[in-house]
Amino acid sequence: MNNKVEMRNTGDATMAGTTTPDLEIPYESCLIEGIPDPCMIVIVGASGDLTARKIIPALFNLFLNDGLPDPFLVVGCARTKMSNQEFRDKMKNALLTAGILDDQKWQDFSKSLYYQAIDYVESPSFKALAGSLRKLDIKNGTGGNRIFYLAIPPSLYKSTAHMLGEVGLSVEDENGNGWVRIVVEKPFGRDLDSAIDLDRSLHEHFREHQIFRIDHYLAKETVQNILMFRFANAIFEPIWNRRYIDHVSITAAETLGVEHRAGYYEQAGVLRDMFQNHMMQLLALTAMDPPSVFEADRVRDEKVKVYRTMRPFPTDDLQGYLVLGQYGAGTIDGKKVPAYRDEPGINPDSLTPTFARMKVFLDNWRWQGVPFYLTSGKRLAKKITEIIIQFKEVPHSMFREILGEHITANRLIMGIYPDEKISLTFQTKNPGARVCLRSVTMDFHYHQNYNGPILDAYEKVLLDCMLGDHMLFWRQDGVELCWSFLTPILKECETCGDRAKLLLPYKSGTSGPEVAKNMMK
Amino acid sequence: MNNKVEMRNTGDATMAGTTTPDLEIPYESCLIEGIPDPCMIVIVGASGDLTARKIIPALFNLFLNDGLPDPFLVVGCARTKMSNQEFRDKMKNALLTAGILDDQKWQDFSKSLYYQAIDYVESPSFKALAGSLRKLDIKNGTGGNRIFYLAIPPSLYKSTAHMLGEVGLSVEDENGNGWVRIVVEKPFGRDLDSAIDLDRSLHEHFREHQIFRIDHYLAKETVQNILMFRFANAIFEPIWNRRYIDHVSITAAETLGVEHRAGYYEQAGVLRDMFQNHMMQLLALTAMDPPSVFEADRVRDEKVKVYRTMRPFPTDDLQGYLVLGQYGAGTIDGKKVPAYRDEPGINPDSLTPTFARMKVFLDNWRWQGVPFYLTSGKRLAKKITEIIIQFKEVPHSMFREILGEHITANRLIMGIYPDEKISLTFQTKNPGARVCLRSVTMDFHYHQNYNGPILDAYEKVLLDCMLGDHMLFWRQDGVELCWSFLTPILKECETCGDRAKLLLPYKSGTSGPEVAKNMMK
Repeated sequence: MNNKVEMRNTGDATMAGTTTPDLEIPYESCLIEGIPDPCMIVIVGASGDLTARKIIPALFNLFLNDGLPDPFLVVGCARTKMSNQEFRDKMKNALLTAGILDDQKWQDFSKSLYYQAIDYVESPSFKALAGSLRKLDIKNGTGGNRIFYLAIPPSLYKSTAHMLGEVGLSVEDENGNGWVRIVVEKPFGRDLDSAIDLDRSLHEHFREHQIFRIDHYLAKETVQNILMFRFANAIFEPIWNRRYIDHVSITAAETLGVEHRAGYYEQAGVLRDMFQNHMMQLLALTAMDPPSVFEADRVRDEKVKVYRTMRPFPTDDLQGYLVLGQYGAGTIDGKKVPAYRDEPGINPDSLTPTFARMKVFLDNWRWQGVPFYLTSGKRLAKKITEIIIQFKEVPHSMFREILGEHITANRLIMGIYPDEKISLTFQTKNPGARVCLRSVTMDFHYHQNYNGPILDAYEKVLLDCMLGDHMLFWRQDGVELCWSFLTPILKECETCGDRAKLLLPYKSGTSGPEVAKNMMK
Repeated sequence: MNNKVEMRNTGDATMAGTTTPDLEIPYESCLIEGIPDPCMIVIVGASGDLTARKIIPALFNLFLNDGLPDPFLVVGCARTKMSNQEFRDKMKNALLTAGILDDQKWQDFSKSLYYQAIDYVESPSFKALAGSLRKLDIKNGTGGNRIFYLAIPPSLYKSTAHMLGEVGLSVEDENGNGWVRIVVEKPFGRDLDSAIDLDRSLHEHFREHQIFRIDHYLAKETVQNILMFRFANAIFEPIWNRRYIDHVSITAAETLGVEHRAGYYEQAGVLRDMFQNHMMQLLALTAMDPPSVFEADRVRDEKVKVYRTMRPFPTDDLQGYLVLGQYGAGTIDGKKVPAYRDEPGINPDSLTPTFARMKVFLDNWRWQGVPFYLTSGKRLAKKITEIIIQFKEVPHSMFREILGEHITANRLIMGIYPDEKISLTFQTKNPGARVCLRSVTMDFHYHQNYNGPILDAYEKVLLDCMLGDHMLFWRQDGVELCWSFLTPILKECETCGDRAKLLLPYKSGTSGPEVAKNMMK
């Protein structure tokens, strides 16, 4: 079978004079949109996993692509005592493990790395840090610009932010010489109250514009593309509503189990781990109205508008809107895997959900009556992240006497993983004499015809943080609105008497509890 | 560069349980939608070019694909005296020339071929024909079902139809045993009056349901697909109107010159040769409202509605709406070609147009203000037939501060020749950090993933005629409405004093007169 579908850059005029020429939009395969101010990034928790696996490799990649300012410093802090050299060696190892070590470049990069041991709860320790940073600043000319990246357990966010503030490290220069930013990773609290509490603590010394709440999903190319695709093309927005869309399905499925994160996951479960952040962001990007301008706060305004319209789940019919599951033993890719409750570190009677599907309705004009199915889970059959826009059938089939009542409806898939693509399914005439249709799918693969460098999600968020661009970060009102939606559900699931009944077992390597399928029927 | 775009049949569910399954529409690669009644086809003009090049090869192909009824007869008639055997030998040669002769199958097929010489203007000759047909009918069991295919110059249509009627050959059996059909090819007249006159002559003995006015363009797969594409997909119809479409461009460009058809072409010119038929059909298919049901008369009703809304050209600004050209000498594919006036058989002072572009407006709600540019010509740079739907730009660009005011607008191309395809141009994010867009084009090639047999246009129209399906044939009201639109233009171009001024020369191998380009600006 000939599967060839050609894909070209720009709709080249097919015949001189018979088609109007395309308006020329110059585009370059430009990686970096601006070099940030000289600055230092202070990684609090620098001896941990996140630093070695994500932050340092991301910074090194930016360095390789000339994306870092000069001067630029990395200051690692953690409880562990280490010399600068020991820290550098450890980071060198991390790059080796990541497979991106370039000895020559490392020589240059490593000179920017420093380390200072701190005690997270002792003020003198932070005072000493402040002193060291000041000295490094003066010596290297980083202009007082500092990012504090909290690569520590969330339980330490409050105290660390407090300590940083107490020793004056949160203060920005009044004349704009020297900005200070603080980066936190999810989870931002574990329910509405704790999220508000955490935010209050951060705001004790930091102002909202200084706070960067990371959701690295937002920095994925294909996730960023959602807005471009929706709002740079005139043909999709007119059909992007309840009149033409039957339902939307947003899926983030994993094959992995809980791995080494038992302690965290037992407390979080799938709702806090995936829904409160990534799934809500994908929902907002899919459902939001067009912002008037592509600026962080105008985009975040529109997202928040979506969150405000989420219809609370009816507590008397929770199961009609929410299916929770927990994986049992099973087989994935031919390999036997244990049940969640048999994983190391997991309570053998754990009631923590590892799978959830929810049916969300948005009470606004655009989406009234259109279900958004959000699905995420561990140990599912396939690792896949995608957004499916399922359009309605034609309102009336002129072919019904020949083809019957139904014609397969159009479907648009925005693939995020593993296929970074957009695909559109539509009907064409099947060649031959008979009046018959066939469904065909056109796929556009995102990196097709692109050979330039790509920023991974962590590189992108680090760069944006240095540039002070909040576009890809959560704003507190969004965080709170999502918690407002989820907290009653969490309460119901975690405290009600028959909560064990709410949790359905599913075999690893399947698509989740059977009941979840019925929800979409 | 990696140009791979995958294309699959049917939108296969990407993950069990996460997507609703496609409604299954069974489709087969079925060539024939029904075997016609036993019948005979009487080719009037059987010694001519059309018979040898098109009709007999088409019938033979249908025979090879089991598409013909059994029994089935071909009776050739023409002035030339030939025996049955001589006719068969001539047709065998024709198949040989067409490269489709299969000796084994020819043995079977040739038995169905007969010949009878006639004189087009002598009644006794037609009486004899009637007698022969009756005998063949009885002998072969073709049930009195007859198609008269007029493969003769249009000037003979009237007299031949008259003769057929006079000897009773137009009469259908009252009890439905034995139908009679007459097939005519374009041109159907040379202006409104002559078209009405021709029609009156045909109706002297034939009723409308017996008359099949061929436009073989309509039988092209990709032309048939236009309706399926538009009305079997729910996502295109909502944007198929003046609100979202900037303009439509319909082009049928040829590289060939007048060839051996000087006599015909000098009288016809491009307006009668291409616009009165093919271009008008493509216009109607692109612009029509959805018929309630896919039946010949309901589809033709909608086409006629389009023709009724064509805004007459303002005679005081004809050149704003119509550019006519005539080819001069030039080069095509590296080969020198002569000017139209230097072609054999052409008047050296000829004012016959070989190129036209017109800007047509449809005065209805759907299309008010949207120009349809219809372009056709000979000796152009490239042989291409396509319909371009040029959408408007986004109404408001949220990216204007970054990307400027303009974003390349979406474009949908329905390619008919040489690429049988549908292609959609849209904007995506260019990978990398910078907010920038790129235009990408997804192409769907029509025969992709299809290995079954294909009917060519003549096969399809012959089959439909045998089946009595008028879907792909002109109805007289459509013919007359198109002539109503074109006749005033033709008058202006052919009789006004400064008509030479209306005709712009263009070099062969270009895209037509320069002025034509300005029309689309």
